[in-house]
Amino acid sequence: MLSFENDYSAGAHPEVLKHLQETNMEILSGYGTDTYTDSAKEKIKKFFNCPEGDVYFITGGTQTNQLIISTMLENYEGVVAATTGHVSGHEAGAIEYTGHKVLTVPGHAGKMDAGELKVFLQDFYADGNHEHMVFPGMVYISFPTEYGTIYSKKELEDIYAVCREFDMPLFIDGARLGYGLVSSACDIKPEDLPKLCDVFYAGGTKVGALCGEAVVFTHNNAPGHFVTQIKQHGALLAKGRLNSVQFDALFTDNLYLKISQNAIDLAEELKKIFAERGYKFFLDSPTNQQFFIMENSKLEELKDKVKYGFWEKYDETHTVVRFATAWYTKKEDLEELKKYI
Amino acid sequence: MLSFENDYSAGAHPEVLKHLQETNMEILSGYGTDTYTDSAKEKIKKFFNCPEGDVYFITGGTQTNQLIISTMLENYEGVVAATTGHVSGHEAGAIEYTGHKVLTVPGHAGKMDAGELKVFLQDFYADGNHEHMVFPGMVYISFPTEYGTIYSKKELEDIYAVCREFDMPLFIDGARLGYGLVSSACDIKPEDLPKLCDVFYAGGTKVGALCGEAVVFTHNNAPGHFVTQIKQHGALLAKGRLNSVQFDALFTDNLYLKISQNAIDLAEELKKIFAERGYKFFLDSPTNQQFFIMENSKLEELKDKVKYGFWEKYDETHTVVRFATAWYTKKEDLEELKKYI
Amino acid sequence: MLSFENDYSAGAHPEVLKHLQETNMEILSGYGTDTYTDSAKEKIKKFFNCPEGDVYFITGGTQTNQLIISTMLENYEGVVAATTGHVSGHEAGAIEYTGHKVLTVPGHAGKMDAGELKVFLQDFYADGNHEHMVFPGMVYISFPTEYGTIYSKKELEDIYAVCREFDMPLFIDGARLGYGLVSSACDIKPEDLPKLCDVFYAGGTKVGALCGEAVVFTHNNAPGHFVTQIKQHGALLAKGRLNSVQFDALFTDNLYLKISQNAIDLAEELKKIFAERGYKFFLDSPTNQQFFIMENSKLEELKDKVKYGFWEKYDETHTVVRFATAWYTKKEDLEELKKYI
Amino acid sequence: MLSFENDYSAGAHPEVLKHLQETNMEILSGYGTDTYTDSAKEKIKKFFNCPEGDVYFITGGTQTNQLIISTMLENYEGVVAATTGHVSGHEAGAIEYTGHKVLTVPGHAGKMDAGELKVFLQDFYADGNHEHMVFPGMVYISFPTEYGTIYSKKELEDIYAVCREFDMPLFIDGARLGYGLVSSACDIKPEDLPKLCDVFYAGGTKVGALCGEAVVFTHNNAPGHFVTQIKQHGALLAKGRLNSVQFDALFTDNLYLKISQNAIDLAEELKKIFAERGYKFFLDSPTNQQFFIMENSKLEELKDKVKYGFWEKYDETHTVVRFATAWYTKKEDLEELKKYI
Repeated sequence: MLSFENDYSAGAHPEVLKHLQETNMEILSGYGTDTYTDSAKEKIKKFFNCPEGDVYFITGGTQTNQLIISTMLENYEGVVAATTGHVSGHEAGAIEYTGHKVLTVPGHAGKMDAGELKVFLQDFYADGNHEHMVFPGMVYISFPTEYGTIYSKKELEDIYAVCREFDMPLFIDGARLGYGLVSSACDIKPEDLPKLCDVFYAGGTKVGALCGEAVVFTHNNAPGHFVTQIKQHGALLAKGRLNSVQFDALFTDNLYLKISQNAIDLAEELKKIFAERGYKFFLDSPTNQQFFIMENSKLEELKDKVKYGFWEKYDETHTVVRFATAWYTKKEDLEELKKYI
Repeated sequence: MLSFENDYSAGAHPEVLKHLQETNMEILSGYGTDTYTDSAKEKIKKFFNCPEGDVYFITGGTQTNQLIISTMLENYEGVVAATTGHVSGHEAGAIEYTGHKVLTVPGHAGKMDAGELKVFLQDFYADGNHEHMVFPGMVYISFPTEYGTIYSKKELEDIYAVCREFDMPLFIDGARLGYGLVSSACDIKPEDLPKLCDVFYAGGTKVGALCGEAVVFTHNNAPGHFVTQIKQHGALLAKGRLNSVQFDALFTDNLYLKISQNAIDLAEELKKIFAERGYKFFLDSPTNQQFFIMENSKLEELKDKVKYGFWEKYDETHTVVRFATAWYTKKEDLEELKKYI
Repeated sequence: MLSFENDYSAGAHPEVLKHLQETNMEILSGYGTDTYTDSAKEKIKKFFNCPEGDVYFITGGTQTNQLIISTMLENYEGVVAATTGHVSGHEAGAIEYTGHKVLTVPGHAGKMDAGELKVFLQDFYADGNHEHMVFPGMVYISFPTEYGTIYSKKELEDIYAVCREFDMPLFIDGARLGYGLVSSACDIKPEDLPKLCDVFYAGGTKVGALCGEAVVFTHNNAPGHFVTQIKQHGALLAKGRLNSVQFDALFTDNLYLKISQNAIDLAEELKKIFAERGYKFFLDSPTNQQFFIMENSKLEELKDKVKYGFWEKYDETHTVVRFATAWYTKKEDLEELKKYI
Repeated sequence: MLSFENDYSAGAHPEVLKHLQETNMEILSGYGTDTYTDSAKEKIKKFFNCPEGDVYFITGGTQTNQLIISTMLENYEGVVAATTGHVSGHEAGAIEYTGHKVLTVPGHAGKMDAGELKVFLQDFYADGNHEHMVFPGMVYISFPTEYGTIYSKKELEDIYAVCREFDMPLFIDGARLGYGLVSSACDIKPEDLPKLCDVFYAGGTKVGALCGEAVVFTHNNAPGHFVTQIKQHGALLAKGRLNSVQFDALFTDNLYLKISQNAIDLAEELKKIFAERGYKFFLDSPTNQQFFIMENSKLEELKDKVKYGFWEKYDETHTVVRFATAWYTKKEDLEELKKYI
């Protein structure tokens, strides 16, 4: 069966797995003190031109979001996200579990607007009762967003300017960062990113690794005793090599972007196929996640041939579905898909 | 350099890595709904003869301890452990982070005594002020313990009887379970374990896997909506296959015990070597962790040849050190060690 | 200066204070085991005709909401409230601090709609991803609401029916319960309340006491070891008498309703005054909180003569303000007010 | 029946109650913004000669301990207390509920030793694994202690010197502060206290008030947005006047110390009575709590005549009991007691 269900259905990219294998029997020290951790950190700092970055490897996305948000916020603060932000609705309350509220501003095709963010913050401080409310303590966005859309450099600069005006760190969830950076619609270069936020991560789970997210605090601003805090959250691996060896491979010879490019090329192809056949796009996404409005009868027909993601009900007879490409999607998959839709 | 520092310094057992590799490009569904999860669960239930077991795969040990304890306790309860128990001192407060106190009873070479546990519980309920104190809500032990020692079947039965008398679940941390089960001093069979506790786990990280712990709730007693709770803790992997494929290999053809046997055989050899040379044993351990009292001058000498674990200061001129064997320790390592000590 | 700012600006009703005084030097046991606690509990159970009620006295409203919600929810559950619900925006994150999310449904003049609640719950369970989301675990409403409005008996029955259908407890925040019960628009009698929810409280802080809220779990359904949980939240008073003596007075000779009546009578008078002068009502409230849309220039004029509550900006030249009456409001206050508006 | 059970069995001191009564119908603003809060703060700052103090009024002791500890610690830190410290065993896990561990050093008649504290801290930082452990983040002591003992000025200076050396705040729980300060064994003056710690509180609940503890952060070091954090903990009273009016009375005309003196004078008398009759003292306490070792048969005899506090079993035939005097104890009570013992 064809699968466009998501971007985490295969294992690791062969080069990543090979590196795990070649280093497998080496005796390495634990808890992130191995040589591959050092090496991968250096490669990542170089890739993003971020010599003052503090880099850490965390195993999963929810975990990374929970860790960064809960360790950067003060007790009385919440994180501001778009209503459609991943941390708002789809993390099983992992943020609230650490004692912090997710505050929301409107989402526009998944994106937050700098002007609306500013109004939200101004209104908060203008409210005479704000001492009785949760303080906005940081801003969370994702790049690409839940809807595959991306911010322009100007949009990020504007959001970051608002954050600095209100003395709040900006956090960019880059679970699918590679797919954003190589999009032809993207005017942000890897080396721009550290100048546009206080912390971001380059996701591995969805871009070539079995697991792992590489967190970069952009200006030596990692929370105090961060290793202890990782452990306190149950997130410190004894075999830190599992994450570091994979990132060491992903950031060698530009592998991270190369394999992302495959997903984007095929996503463009996918868009063409759907457009030619007259399908309606739910929104315009320039990355590896595409959202179409399809007839329920058609979906019923596809059921045994293609896996796709259910997104939401559109109307009585139509549904919004997600088709995702990934580093492992093959041109042949698209050829076969043409037969069915 | 020789390494007896711990039992998590190599990667995965070759058979485990091979299984990861062979399945790598298969398209599998996420979050623990893949076919290898089903297969590994069945093998584990069979291995422990536990048809009513609920099996889950969690990525690391601290995370597993945190999850099990926080999801099985009521808000007003704490977990009872030996003073030397891992969750008491060496988890960076991961248990307290979830709002629960670790209550302690004395440790004897790492073990809790059923009689002392009973007195502790009786005293608690006899105290007229106990409504102002943390209720003991479950008992945590590890097998083997922090000191490599193991409980006899009789000792476990006695502890479990006390737990049942006070209506508290018993949780056995089996991060090194394999090394305990194959010890010649062990009178517990795999199929005994589910009858001796309410939840236990078979550790992978220290016994042949890159990561992963297999949790077994022994009588369909997994906490409600456990998958959601795993996610809420940031512990749900998108690629659940990472854990399940490894456990699928470890529980095929008895691999889990076979590779544990290597560690135990060589630990016996190690003990002989130290005994013959007149070194003093800190305590008598029948598993893969051995504790010796060594002269500081001797340790200084070894520094560049052998890695070992510092345990604690013994007196002004002696130190307690840990030498651990593992599934990956080689006979040649011991031969070489002989030259130095 | 005249004060219509809120309903907690005076101390205790004289009868309440007198009871504190008369009992002041009695030697009473602590932590809620005194005789006045017993007496007040009995009076409350009788007042609400709730022989199977478990009654507890808690010192403040936020504390009560935090305690009830966090002790009745499972770890993986959140509380459902109207977007305008007090726990949603104005408790400084006290609910999230305990690890739980506040889920929201639309508010209509402060009220939740049973039909919309049902759709919200149906949609949740219909969503294939709901295991990755916070489970709705209880419903929170207030009576009267933040806007002074009240539910009809039919509306409460409908909401409670939805709750029971989805096996969720219904919690009614009655911080201003007295003012609701005596409203001429109210068709709910005190003895109806226990049949319409699983837990509610009769507020003292805003209805005649210096502090204190009387919580009633309506069918012997208090959370386990609730006294211990109160203490764990830092909410157990050594001198439990402070709360119990006050409630003992409030529920003697129907004092609770009598003093509420004063607020409602004067609120009716207040409405007449504003209506006669042509002021615009923001909404129609039948209780002690009234919301008017007033010109900013007029408010500027009033500033030194009358205290009122700022609610929200209406447009560039108008503001929504709240005028509250209370048990201590005097007829003369209204006479004086007439001069200014 | 005579009562020496504890020091919180009567209501408020008549002067305190009188002040509540005289101010009862004044219209005051809420949440600690009333004029009596200002007045009481000034009186307290003057009493302790602490012009740079930040003063807050909290309703109860457990709540105060929970608030101060959880808002002053970083996420990864725990509080260091004596094993017998109140926060260690008798707060129902209120500290752990906020995510923090209570670390313990030995208690000597309730007191911590500066030298042992220093060794504990040195050992922590010397441990190569301390990044895997809970960091000691502040020190908690009480004055007087759980056993009625008090620290000398020199002892406090030594403890505070250790705290400063390790950059940790020192917190003094003064639930019974008045009874300590007036003890003839006390060489600490009120004005010394702010120089000996970073935060302390003067307890009201046990020294003349119905409720309330006055917290003093000694050098403008209150945690950020402390009012919001108080609310987040459910500890912010709408009628802040309840606490502030009481403290306004207690710190007028030295009432706080005067009423404490009564308890200490009668405690000295009590000691004489027991000593003359040959009873054995469990330890030597210079304050209002006295601990005797009494025969069980004697206690049985007293049961219907005198209330005392059960402390702990001493041996098969003896029990340690606590007799407490308080501001409300009368000379006649002691005369009557003489008849029974």
